[in-house]
Amino acid sequence: MGKLKIIVSTTSLFCTRIEWALKLKGLEYELTVEDWDKGKSELLLKSNPVHKKVPVLLDDGVAVAESKVILEYIDEKWKGGDLYPLLPQDPYERAQARFWAQFADDKCVFGTWGAACHADALEKEKAVESTLESFGYLEKQIKGKKFFAGDKIGYLDLVVGWIPHWLGVIEETGGIKILDAESFPSLHEWAQNFIKIPLIKECVPPRDMLVNYSTTLLSYLRSSAPNKP
Amino acid sequence: MGKLKIIVSTTSLFCTRIEWALKLKGLEYELTVEDWDKGKSELLLKSNPVHKKVPVLLDDGVAVAESKVILEYIDEKWKGGDLYPLLPQDPYERAQARFWAQFADDKCVFGTWGAACHADALEKEKAVESTLESFGYLEKQIKGKKFFAGDKIGYLDLVVGWIPHWLGVIEETGGIKILDAESFPSLHEWAQNFIKIPLIKECVPPRDMLVNYSTTLLSYLRSSAPNKP
Repeated sequence: MGKLKIIVSTTSLFCTRIEWALKLKGLEYELTVEDWDKGKSELLLKSNPVHKKVPVLLDDGVAVAESKVILEYIDEKWKGGDLYPLLPQDPYERAQARFWAQFADDKCVFGTWGAACHADALEKEKAVESTLESFGYLEKQIKGKKFFAGDKIGYLDLVVGWIPHWLGVIEETGGIKILDAESFPSLHEWAQNFIKIPLIKECVPPRDMLVNYSTTLLSYLRSSAPNKP
Repeated sequence: MGKLKIIVSTTSLFCTRIEWALKLKGLEYELTVEDWDKGKSELLLKSNPVHKKVPVLLDDGVAVAESKVILEYIDEKWKGGDLYPLLPQDPYERAQARFWAQFADDKCVFGTWGAACHADALEKEKAVESTLESFGYLEKQIKGKKFFAGDKIGYLDLVVGWIPHWLGVIEETGGIKILDAESFPSLHEWAQNFIKIPLIKECVPPRDMLVNYSTTLLSYLRSSAPNKP
């Protein structure tokens, strides 16, 4: 078998979850890092011609795109024995993990970026309120547990694993506050613990790189917004 | 075990795929039909408090929401033996089915409704072109095969199974043309064959009901569009 490769960009929160999954499985991999200054690579365009987005997992001649699809692929291809399971075994628990993963990506990732992006104060406030409501659901899910999956890191922990290192950066650069310890004590505690785990921490990009990226992205998004004031 | 129930609305294309899955598995179920004129039912609000949307599968005390999550739940809970498999066994084929299912929902379902919804001719043309491109990907996926999964109906066939009975209705009521036999010969042939299968056909609502629903929905969406002319 050829070595696993992941096509990534350094700052993409959707890429980090794939690295974590491969590390939990004990699989070796190489990173092929996209350099956006040079445009999208031939390899990326060939491997994910539909969406042309990172991450893409290259596994012995096949390419798998879309981060949650990749996580399931990894869990299904490398399963059993000593291999770390990402999703729970019970069908209902699996359904719950998938439901909340989709919810977290749709409402929390894009909700947070949306709120950070707004220049208009009233629109921003509305977007923050809506995003706080979404984070409230995550708070209920983690309450009383060490990880979303229970006692061990699982699929949903990886999907929401951007919160500890990315959320503070978006809050700072976007002029919003989402995750305060009083409103979301369990989620806050989970975030503090999750990022301390060596396997998790070692895949996280330096904070100043995220701050630079977020500042540039928000500036671009605000200047190209269709309804900018 | 209590009898399976699905909370549905008669015209929702996301609900029909669940009925098909249960029938393929040979499972009995009851429908609990929402009546939108009376507002959302207590049962729906209790069973899917996050999205408050149909379909929801009620299985012996637990509720599963989001149609693609429900399909996977059904396939994982009732598997093995004589039970009909919805997803393929191979991890890469499973990943491909999930990738295209998400693509088809994001780009083809919402692309078609979006194109039908536009009142402005230029915007409508652009939206149709983009949707045609998305359908082009489905055409490539089905080319040379009887079903998306190969020789038997599978998960992806169920997810794109709205095309034979719903697409013509949206085209007619929305003043667009997407699926002509010359541009998409394989997809067109698949659609013609799929809807003839008795198990598939028996879950499909009468055409005039879909026409009424689509006419009302498009009229509502056009009148509430933020950028209407």
